[in-house]
Amino acid sequence: MSCFQVRTDLALEAREGISDADGELRGVRVEEYRNEKSEVSITKVIIDTRNGARAMGKPMGTYITLEAPGLNEPDEDYHREVSEELAKQIRTLLPAEKEEKSVLVVGLGNRDVTADALGPEVVDNLFINRHVVLEYGKAAYGKEKMNLISSLVPGVTAMTGMETAEIIKGVVEQTEPDVVLAVDALAARSTKRLNRTIQISDTGIHPGSGVGNHRNAITRESLGVPVIAIGVPTVVDAATIVGDAMESMARQKGEEKTLAYREHPRALSELNNMYVTSKDIDETVKRLSFTISEAINIALQIA
Amino acid sequence: MSCFQVRTDLALEAREGISDADGELRGVRVEEYRNEKSEVSITKVIIDTRNGARAMGKPMGTYITLEAPGLNEPDEDYHREVSEELAKQIRTLLPAEKEEKSVLVVGLGNRDVTADALGPEVVDNLFINRHVVLEYGKAAYGKEKMNLISSLVPGVTAMTGMETAEIIKGVVEQTEPDVVLAVDALAARSTKRLNRTIQISDTGIHPGSGVGNHRNAITRESLGVPVIAIGVPTVVDAATIVGDAMESMARQKGEEKTLAYREHPRALSELNNMYVTSKDIDETVKRLSFTISEAINIALQIA
Amino acid sequence: MSCFQVRTDLALEAREGISDADGELRGVRVEEYRNEKSEVSITKVIIDTRNGARAMGKPMGTYITLEAPGLNEPDEDYHREVSEELAKQIRTLLPAEKEEKSVLVVGLGNRDVTADALGPEVVDNLFINRHVVLEYGKAAYGKEKMNLISSLVPGVTAMTGMETAEIIKGVVEQTEPDVVLAVDALAARSTKRLNRTIQISDTGIHPGSGVGNHRNAITRESLGVPVIAIGVPTVVDAATIVGDAMESMARQKGEEKTLAYREHPRALSELNNMYVTSKDIDETVKRLSFTISEAINIALQIA
Amino acid sequence: MSCFQVRTDLALEAREGISDADGELRGVRVEEYRNEKSEVSITKVIIDTRNGARAMGKPMGTYITLEAPGLNEPDEDYHREVSEELAKQIRTLLPAEKEEKSVLVVGLGNRDVTADALGPEVVDNLFINRHVVLEYGKAAYGKEKMNLISSLVPGVTAMTGMETAEIIKGVVEQTEPDVVLAVDALAARSTKRLNRTIQISDTGIHPGSGVGNHRNAITRESLGVPVIAIGVPTVVDAATIVGDAMESMARQKGEEKTLAYREHPRALSELNNMYVTSKDIDETVKRLSFTISEAINIALQIA
Repeated sequence: MSCFQVRTDLALEAREGISDADGELRGVRVEEYRNEKSEVSITKVIIDTRNGARAMGKPMGTYITLEAPGLNEPDEDYHREVSEELAKQIRTLLPAEKEEKSVLVVGLGNRDVTADALGPEVVDNLFINRHVVLEYGKAAYGKEKMNLISSLVPGVTAMTGMETAEIIKGVVEQTEPDVVLAVDALAARSTKRLNRTIQISDTGIHPGSGVGNHRNAITRESLGVPVIAIGVPTVVDAATIVGDAMESMARQKGEEKTLAYREHPRALSELNNMYVTSKDIDETVKRLSFTISEAINIALQIA
Repeated sequence: MSCFQVRTDLALEAREGISDADGELRGVRVEEYRNEKSEVSITKVIIDTRNGARAMGKPMGTYITLEAPGLNEPDEDYHREVSEELAKQIRTLLPAEKEEKSVLVVGLGNRDVTADALGPEVVDNLFINRHVVLEYGKAAYGKEKMNLISSLVPGVTAMTGMETAEIIKGVVEQTEPDVVLAVDALAARSTKRLNRTIQISDTGIHPGSGVGNHRNAITRESLGVPVIAIGVPTVVDAATIVGDAMESMARQKGEEKTLAYREHPRALSELNNMYVTSKDIDETVKRLSFTISEAINIALQIA
Repeated sequence: MSCFQVRTDLALEAREGISDADGELRGVRVEEYRNEKSEVSITKVIIDTRNGARAMGKPMGTYITLEAPGLNEPDEDYHREVSEELAKQIRTLLPAEKEEKSVLVVGLGNRDVTADALGPEVVDNLFINRHVVLEYGKAAYGKEKMNLISSLVPGVTAMTGMETAEIIKGVVEQTEPDVVLAVDALAARSTKRLNRTIQISDTGIHPGSGVGNHRNAITRESLGVPVIAIGVPTVVDAATIVGDAMESMARQKGEEKTLAYREHPRALSELNNMYVTSKDIDETVKRLSFTISEAINIALQIA
Repeated sequence: MSCFQVRTDLALEAREGISDADGELRGVRVEEYRNEKSEVSITKVIIDTRNGARAMGKPMGTYITLEAPGLNEPDEDYHREVSEELAKQIRTLLPAEKEEKSVLVVGLGNRDVTADALGPEVVDNLFINRHVVLEYGKAAYGKEKMNLISSLVPGVTAMTGMETAEIIKGVVEQTEPDVVLAVDALAARSTKRLNRTIQISDTGIHPGSGVGNHRNAITRESLGVPVIAIGVPTVVDAATIVGDAMESMARQKGEEKTLAYREHPRALSELNNMYVTSKDIDETVKRLSFTISEAINIALQIA
C-alpha cells in the first residue's frame, strides 16, 4: 500500500489542511456537487499551477473524490448506484482520442494484507477480453466495437524483488495499452473518510506522494501512456493519528502544535511502520473491490 | 480477535500498569528467567488470590510470557529454538493425570483478517492424528504411546451467527478431549511487544478480558475440561494508543491523566472499532503461526 | 468431497442406470417439468418404498434435480433466475410447522481443493443474522418476522481429526436449529452433468451413498432435525469414467461388460484416489457458489 | 497449467513410448543413477540431434528427471534431502559464465486451481533479495558474494488477457536477469508418476509441447536469456487416461489401437477440457512447492 510514508493520499484532505491555514489558494480550483439520487457527493480538485502543486504537495492534475456515506454498508442496490456514478467519473478522465481503446488495469498492493488487497481484488472481478478479441475478434462477443481489456497484479517489491513500476513498464512496452488504470489502497489523514471515499485522478501514482512501497513513478512520464489512479483510503498512518490528536489537544490549550511534537519523539517513533485500520476491513475491502470493478466494467463498455 | 474491547491481553503489561502505581502487589507472584542459548526471556505471572485477580483485572491462574526479540525476523533456526522453548512451557501447563491425552486445538480468530488469522494458520500446520488412531490404532504410526490430536477453526460470530464458545462446547461434548488448546491473536497495550511476545496461560479465555468478539467464556468452567490459551499480540487498540500518548504527555506536564481524557472525547471516539498493526503483518503472522504449530507439535509428542 | 467412493451422487443418474436395465421401477416416481422462462428443467425423483430405495441404492425421500445448461457460463441475470427457481424448490422441502425457523447452513468439503470448495464458498456469501437477532431482536433489521440464520464450515476429517458429523451434531445440540441445510460438492457418473446440475433432497447425507470423507450420517436420524442436502456435481470418479468407457466399448462389440473389467484390474486400480474435473473449475465453483447462496438467501427470506 | 493439450510433459515418458516401439533411438542419450542415501533416482535424457527431437516430440536439450517415491508423503527430513539433491541438479544447468548471477524465478500456473498452483506457491517461499541488494548492497546480508533473486507470478491468460510470455518478456527486458527459472505444474501420461517426479530442463517451455495455456514460447530464443524449466506432473489429461486404457485393452485382444479410437469418438470428446488429479492434491502441492523452493534457495546460495 502506498499510504505508509505520508500524511494523506487524498487531495481533498490536503486541500483542507491548507485552507485552514491560508484560506484561498492560488492555482487550485475546487468544484463540488451532490447527486441527490445516489446520495453521492463529488468534489473535483484541479491543480493547474506549479504553485498549487507545491502548496498541496501533489502533482498538477485533476482529483475527483466521490464520497458515499453508505459505502461501507452491505446494500447491493446502493453499491450499483455508486458504481454507475463512479463509472461516469472514470469516463471523464479516459483519453478521448480513440473510441476503442486498449486498457490495462493494474491491481497494486499486497493480496495477503487485508487492508492492502483492494487493487488485486478489484482485478479479480473485472471483465477481461483482450486475449479473446485478439484471437477470435469482437465477433466472439457479437459486438462491433469494444475496448480491449487486460489486467496485471504485479505484487509488492518485498515479494518480487522488483519495483512495481519496472514490472508495469515492461508489460506496457510489450502489450502497448492506450491507457493504464492503477487501483490501489490509500492512506487518509483522518479515520472519518476511511472506506467511504473513492479518489480518481489523471496524475498516476507519484514517488513520495504516498507511494513508499513502489518507489518509482507510475505516470504518463514513466510509462509513456496516460495513467488514471483509482484509490480508496483503507488505513491511516498510526503516527499521523497520534500526532494529530496531540496537536489538536495542544491547540485547544493554545499551545504551539510544534511543541506537542518535540515533547513526544518516543510516542511517535514507536509507531513507525504501524498503521490504523478498521476491524471489519475484510468485509469492507470485499464490498469496495466489487463496487469498483463493476464501475470499471461499466466505464469500459461501449454500448 | 479478542483484543478489541480492552487495553491489554498481556498479564505482563497488566502487572506493569499496577506496579507503577502501587509497587508490591499481594497475591501476584512474578518469576523471571532468561535462556541464554535461545535468547528467550520467560516471565511467569502467578495470580493466586482474588485480590490479585481484581487488581490485575485478570482471572486467577498462571500466565507465562515468552519474549524473543528476534521473533519477528525470518531466521528458521532461531524459530526452531523458540518452538522448543515454547513447547517446554506448554508442557508445564498440560494436565498431568494421564500420559496419553486427547487434545483439541482450537484456532480462534478470522482467517480473512491478516492480523487476526494467527489461530487458523497455527491449526493449518498441526500434526493431526485422532481420526487415524481411532480407525487404525497407533500401529499406523508405529508408536506405542501417542496423544490424540484434533483441531477446530470455529470462525467468527459475524460469519457463523453463533458464539465461538457454543461451537467449541458442542464439539467438546461430542469428542470429549482431555484438554483444549485455544490459540488466538491478542491485543497489547504498547506496540513494543507486538509480534515478539507469546503468552501461555491455564485460565482459558474470559469474557471481558479481551474477548469481545466471542463473548462467552472458553474456560474449564464452561467446557468442563482444562483450557490452555496461547496468544501473540498482533494489534494495539487505536484508542488505547492515542489515549496513552496523550496521558503520558499530560503527565509530563504534571496534569491529571483523567483530565487529558475529558478534553478528548472526539479524538478517541473517532477511533472506535479501529486497531493498529504493523505493515508486514502478513509475513509476521505466517512466521509466528509456523513457530507456534511447531511448538504444539513438539509439546504433544510422546518420545 | 463425498463423491469419491461411489459411482454417482445423483438420483437422476441412478434412475437412468436402472431404467436402462429393467424399465418401469416400483416405488420410484419421477415428475418432470421445464420452466420455459428460466430454461431450467426440474426433475423430481420420489423414492417412497424400501424396494425403490434398494433398487436405486439411495435412501427413501425426495430428490429434486435442477438442470440449467447455461449454469457454467458467466451470465449474471441468468444466474439470478436460476437462484429464484432454486429458492422455490428449496422452500418445498423446508419443514412447514413453524413460519419462523432457526436454520443452520453447513458448508461441507475442503476449502483448499478447488473442486471441493463449493460448500465453504456458499457459506461465505450467506446473509447471517442469528447473533444479531438474538442480541438486538428483529427490530435491528426493521422486520417483524425473520428466520434465524447461522452457518458452519466444519472442515474435512483429514484436517480436523474428527468426523464432520461429530462436529455438526455438537453444534446442533448447542444451538438447536429447526433444520440443517448441508451444501456439498458431488460426484456425477458422467461428465455431461458436471457443473450444470443442482440436486436438492430431504434425505440428508448418508454414509456410503457417496460420503466417504465424512463417514457418519448427517441426517434427521443422526442430528434429530431435518437435513436438506444441496449439491452440485463437480467431479467424476476417475475409475468410473474409464470403466464406463471400456464397458460401452465392450458393449458395442457385443461383449459382457463384466468381461471388460476382469481384463483391466490394473488400469482401474491405478486410478484409485483420482478424480476428473474441468479445467475452469475455479471460475465454475465461484459462480455456482454465488448462485446457490443467493438461492438460500431468497428461500429463507420472509417477505 | 500447460499440460492440457498434450499426452505428456515428461521426456522420460516420451522416451518410454518410443523405446517400446523401436528400441535404440538415435540422437537421444539416457543416463541413470540412484542416490542410495536419498533414495532418489535421477534420469538424464539428452536430446542432441534434430532426429531425436522429432522422434521425442521435444526440443533438443537436457531433461533431468528426479524420482522420489516418498515425495508425496509428509516426511520433513526426507524432503530436505530431496531439496538438496534437486539443488545439485539445478546447479548443473545454471549458466556458468558468471559466479554471481541475477535470477528471475517465474511461478507459472493458476493460484486458484489447486493442481495448477505449484508455480505460484513455490515463489511464495523463495528467498528474494534483489531489491535489498540493489538499494543497500550485499553488506545488508553481511555477504561478499550473492546471486540477485527476484520473482514473478504472471497469472493465467484467462485472467490477465495477455500471453504469459508477453508479461515475462517485458519484465526480463526491464530487469535484465542472467537466467530465468520457470516453475510449472505438468501433465504426466500415466498416474504412476504423479506428484513424485520432478523434471528440470534447459529448454525452457515450448508452445505445443504442453504449454497450451501460455501459447508463446518461454525460451532462450524468445527471452534472450537461458530458461531453466522446473516442473512436477500433478495431473493427467482425462482423454489420455481413457484412451490409454482402451488402447492397452485393445492391444491385449490383439487389435489395432487406432481401431479402439475410431470406436470411441464420443467417450473421448466428452472428456475434452477435463483432467485427472489426486484427491489429496492440496496437501501434495503444499509439500512439493515447499521442497522445490527450498531446492531453489539452496541452489542459488553462494556459500
